[in-house]
Amino acid sequence: MVTEIEKKVMEAKMASITLASVDTQTKDRALEAMANALDENRDRIIETNGADLEEAGRMKAEGKLSQALVDRLKVSNSKIDGMISGIRDVIKLEDPSGKTMKTLELDTGLDLYQVSCPIGLIGVIFESRPDVVPQIMSLCLKSGNATIFKGGSEALNSNRTIFDILVKAMENIEGIPKGAFQLMETREEVMNLLALDDYIDLLIPRGSNEFVKYIQDNTKISVLGHADGICHVYVDTSADMDKAYDVCFDSKVQYPAVCNAMETLLINKEIAEDFMPEMMKRYDEADVELRFDEESYAIAENLGLKNIKRATDEDWKTEYNELILSVKLVDTIEQAINHINRYGSHHTDAIITEDAAKRKQFIDLVDSSSVMVNASTRFADGFRYGKGAEVGISTNKIHSRGPVGMEGLVIYKYVLLGNGDKVSDYAGDEPKPFTHRVIDKKLSDALNN
Amino acid sequence: MVTEIEKKVMEAKMASITLASVDTQTKDRALEAMANALDENRDRIIETNGADLEEAGRMKAEGKLSQALVDRLKVSNSKIDGMISGIRDVIKLEDPSGKTMKTLELDTGLDLYQVSCPIGLIGVIFESRPDVVPQIMSLCLKSGNATIFKGGSEALNSNRTIFDILVKAMENIEGIPKGAFQLMETREEVMNLLALDDYIDLLIPRGSNEFVKYIQDNTKISVLGHADGICHVYVDTSADMDKAYDVCFDSKVQYPAVCNAMETLLINKEIAEDFMPEMMKRYDEADVELRFDEESYAIAENLGLKNIKRATDEDWKTEYNELILSVKLVDTIEQAINHINRYGSHHTDAIITEDAAKRKQFIDLVDSSSVMVNASTRFADGFRYGKGAEVGISTNKIHSRGPVGMEGLVIYKYVLLGNGDKVSDYAGDEPKPFTHRVIDKKLSDALNN
Repeated sequence: MVTEIEKKVMEAKMASITLASVDTQTKDRALEAMANALDENRDRIIETNGADLEEAGRMKAEGKLSQALVDRLKVSNSKIDGMISGIRDVIKLEDPSGKTMKTLELDTGLDLYQVSCPIGLIGVIFESRPDVVPQIMSLCLKSGNATIFKGGSEALNSNRTIFDILVKAMENIEGIPKGAFQLMETREEVMNLLALDDYIDLLIPRGSNEFVKYIQDNTKISVLGHADGICHVYVDTSADMDKAYDVCFDSKVQYPAVCNAMETLLINKEIAEDFMPEMMKRYDEADVELRFDEESYAIAENLGLKNIKRATDEDWKTEYNELILSVKLVDTIEQAINHINRYGSHHTDAIITEDAAKRKQFIDLVDSSSVMVNASTRFADGFRYGKGAEVGISTNKIHSRGPVGMEGLVIYKYVLLGNGDKVSDYAGDEPKPFTHRVIDKKLSDALNN
Repeated sequence: MVTEIEKKVMEAKMASITLASVDTQTKDRALEAMANALDENRDRIIETNGADLEEAGRMKAEGKLSQALVDRLKVSNSKIDGMISGIRDVIKLEDPSGKTMKTLELDTGLDLYQVSCPIGLIGVIFESRPDVVPQIMSLCLKSGNATIFKGGSEALNSNRTIFDILVKAMENIEGIPKGAFQLMETREEVMNLLALDDYIDLLIPRGSNEFVKYIQDNTKISVLGHADGICHVYVDTSADMDKAYDVCFDSKVQYPAVCNAMETLLINKEIAEDFMPEMMKRYDEADVELRFDEESYAIAENLGLKNIKRATDEDWKTEYNELILSVKLVDTIEQAINHINRYGSHHTDAIITEDAAKRKQFIDLVDSSSVMVNASTRFADGFRYGKGAEVGISTNKIHSRGPVGMEGLVIYKYVLLGNGDKVSDYAGDEPKPFTHRVIDKKLSDALNN
């Protein structure tokens, strides 16, 4: 028997085929209509959001919902401004689909094109942030991907309203297929969605580490994202101290609540006595709680710091996401690299060094999606990496890694244009040779001839 | 408790970090040593293979092993020639790792490099073809990936001997880390390997469709490969008949045992009476068994063919891998596309047409890794696509799709080279702007300065 959820997913999968071939102009017209529709329906959105907030307030009072979750649930007029400008930003971004990536002449008159195309059907599972809907919907639409959304029950009314406004506006535009975007009702379980690996090509989870980890552990579908963000800075003997102070401070303090903030500072033993006093004072003034391993504690306890503790093994595995930093001394750069590869989350790690050989060693051997040399870990982000909009940060080793823009929502297909060519001419005793010559020719041009 | 299998996998994972940074020259030296070692140990290989063949003969007599499997198990002197030349071919291929893919200046003196790097640890699971070991080991070594091999019990001695010869030769070369390549013993179960998604980054299964499907269904690790290869050719009203005859014949008959051979021929009803007589006679002369849907049967039964049947619904879902072809008439190109997307395996599908609009429609809407226009489905292959060596053919929508060469064994990392740069300068009330300028600069050059 086909369940309600399968029906929706199959409808979206069918529509995804047509959506994949919609031209950029039409998609941009639909995005503009979506932005305008949000603007015209502000009152309706804020009103329904009020109902969710009221219910969330009750649940918070009962201790079932955290204040942070309630905060993220709220949709204000300025949040709607953000949604609208987000959609308009996506209009300005280049369509990643339909690009000829490489063209190879196999033989005269037999050209092989590698062309980017949408992945197909994306599943988005998110906790209580209704602004995920316009953000992901605009990125998926622009890249030509159909999408299934599954939000949290606490944002039920807000999600439904925003979703309906956007889809109605989009489907009014000629050329956009119906049914490519679907919203799961809350009574439909996340687990049912996770099992649909025959239909869903990629999952994007948005939420806490535990939430992402749960998704990763319970599906065979590829997941674009990361659970932990345990980032390190290693200060080498060859470090320029001023650079070290700046980068180490920024990596921890500039915005500690995010995945690319530093959690553990590794310091080479040789320079610890020189480096620590000034650095630790800066942290102390910024109210950072410092947790030291045995050797660094011995130095720190004489520095008159107000908030110091001893680190345990648990600290090396912990993403604090707040003003807490663990500090460890290492004998060598190798020891630092081993610590990072062992305890880190392969997200973003930095070295402070003026030594070319150590720079290369760190870059080569640290197995992380972003490796920083004399720069803050906080730079690892889609906006700063010039991607315009961020789909997520991936710690996968397959497909997309690091900050991912719309390029992470496309794959490619091969298109071979021939004239009745048969393999038997290129096989057997006297095979024709292939030319295998890279040529500068776009599929779109070839199709217009 | 750490099992024997986990110990091996962890050892390979550790070595993978070092292997990732080995330079191309060293890897090529190791490959040359491997080729020479095979040449010097021909007798030993053939002797141990004899033991496997003897046991396989016994099992075949008991009906436990097919003749095909026994054939693939046999290692002759000419098969060893093939292994050796295969390794030497890989030496000639470009190292896909360590390439600067894109460089973006974020700001003056702050350059972001996107650099290709090995995926890490690859798991290879294969049925009784000992030649898989040198082939995959050379591709993984050249691309810098550590590898775990798990072969079938019927090839136990052959695999162990070839593996030992290759690894001993490789590890004699200075700079190649020990332990990067591991062979699982047969008593260790495949299931245990499939569960190690914390360590293994990518699985490459080599074997029958059922074997690949079993792997895909029982692991969370990404699988590079495909189970079915149900390929179609659609002959449109606008087809050039001579091209249609050639392509349809080649796609089925040139080598029917492989995944990119055609299984179902779709013919537009309007031209069926013109097209079928000549085409079906050609198939008939080549001893192709033809299975027709109702409408095509009505035409076929008057053609005096020797081997015709009625197709059932099951035929549209079947990969025959032999000289059997199912034939179906369709009213429109849309109906052909729907049939292909529904029953096909997203592997390779072709259209025969002289109409530019229909060509575009087919390319846009057929959701397959290779789409052929007036060319045989049999062209979808790593060698013909100019890749030098084929890792596999992927029907995934993530990472690699279609015929995959060594480019499918690399991912990338971002490397940011700065001078103590901090995000706080680019945030807040008066943020510095990013320049986000694409520049033509390689990481290897930057690191030599």
